[in-house]
Amino acid sequence: MKLLEEKILKEGKVLDGDILKVDGFLNHRLDVALLAALGSDIAQKFKDAGATMILTVESSGIALAFAAAECMGLPVLVAKKHRSLNISDGVYASPVFSYTHKTENNVVVSKEYLGAGEKVLIVDDFLASGNAALGLLSLLSQAGAEAVGFAAAVEKEYQGGRALIEKKGVSVYSLARIKEMSAGTIVFD
Amino acid sequence: MKLLEEKILKEGKVLDGDILKVDGFLNHRLDVALLAALGSDIAQKFKDAGATMILTVESSGIALAFAAAECMGLPVLVAKKHRSLNISDGVYASPVFSYTHKTENNVVVSKEYLGAGEKVLIVDDFLASGNAALGLLSLLSQAGAEAVGFAAAVEKEYQGGRALIEKKGVSVYSLARIKEMSAGTIVFD
Repeated sequence: MKLLEEKILKEGKVLDGDILKVDGFLNHRLDVALLAALGSDIAQKFKDAGATMILTVESSGIALAFAAAECMGLPVLVAKKHRSLNISDGVYASPVFSYTHKTENNVVVSKEYLGAGEKVLIVDDFLASGNAALGLLSLLSQAGAEAVGFAAAVEKEYQGGRALIEKKGVSVYSLARIKEMSAGTIVFD
Repeated sequence: MKLLEEKILKEGKVLDGDILKVDGFLNHRLDVALLAALGSDIAQKFKDAGATMILTVESSGIALAFAAAECMGLPVLVAKKHRSLNISDGVYASPVFSYTHKTENNVVVSKEYLGAGEKVLIVDDFLASGNAALGLLSLLSQAGAEAVGFAAAVEKEYQGGRALIEKKGVSVYSLARIKEMSAGTIVFD
């Protein structure tokens, strides 16, 4: 998506450790008009997927998921991150390792809000290794719900997450696909 | 606000420990249409306050702040919660004690995105003891920015947070003001 690619080229910064700093518009300071446009694009892409809800994970995915959900007339379920393994009976949980923060969290949703038969579009800010996505897909399996798609704002293609999700039979859509990046250079696919 | 009060009466539950469970529509599963209406109401209330940005705190405040910001044409700054006291030079930070979780976090924003002279509307899901609000107000003071208002979806009046914020000269608006609550009974002001 041209709009996002241009924003990344203009304001994004590549930091040490393969980190793309986009916190000026995507996940710390939110460019609300941009996010609304990204959400609208995701909604358009998945308008015929039959989704009954959107699933995202706190906290960076929330704004984009909300923007897409507004266009699609769907509720959003926000998976929580818990450090503790001490998980109650009332939830589905799945461990997710974060390469950025070098920590393992559980992603957790209440069983009350994720029923069998739900058709779920997953929305997140980034797709990289696919670890977070696999954790969310595991929550859906546990609930007997179905993933009808996965959408991310920014994909780091070279980290291979897309293939892991597609292997589960889930279609993947990202709005800016980064083929390679280094200090001063970002190449889109 | 009638719409929110009715939703709370219909779906909210009062749990032990003075907890109002509204996670079916406000902060775990998001009722997007409801949140858009709440955001619009906040935008209407503060339309003449001259705000240049909205500040909220992750993760429960994000959706409401986003909804209000869409109506007002403003960016949102999302304060992050950090457990660590090991805070970098590039941020403003303030400690906040959470009564719900019995933990102390720092709320943190990048100096890069909160400039002197910004006129900031703070938006959060709950107003109770006012601790989180005071932490956010401290970030604004550190930056030389000005708070032009504080808006919350749900206020537990009897916890006294409103007076602490108003004492700082900041006007407070909440969409559902709970005067008292106990299992099975919620009384609005």
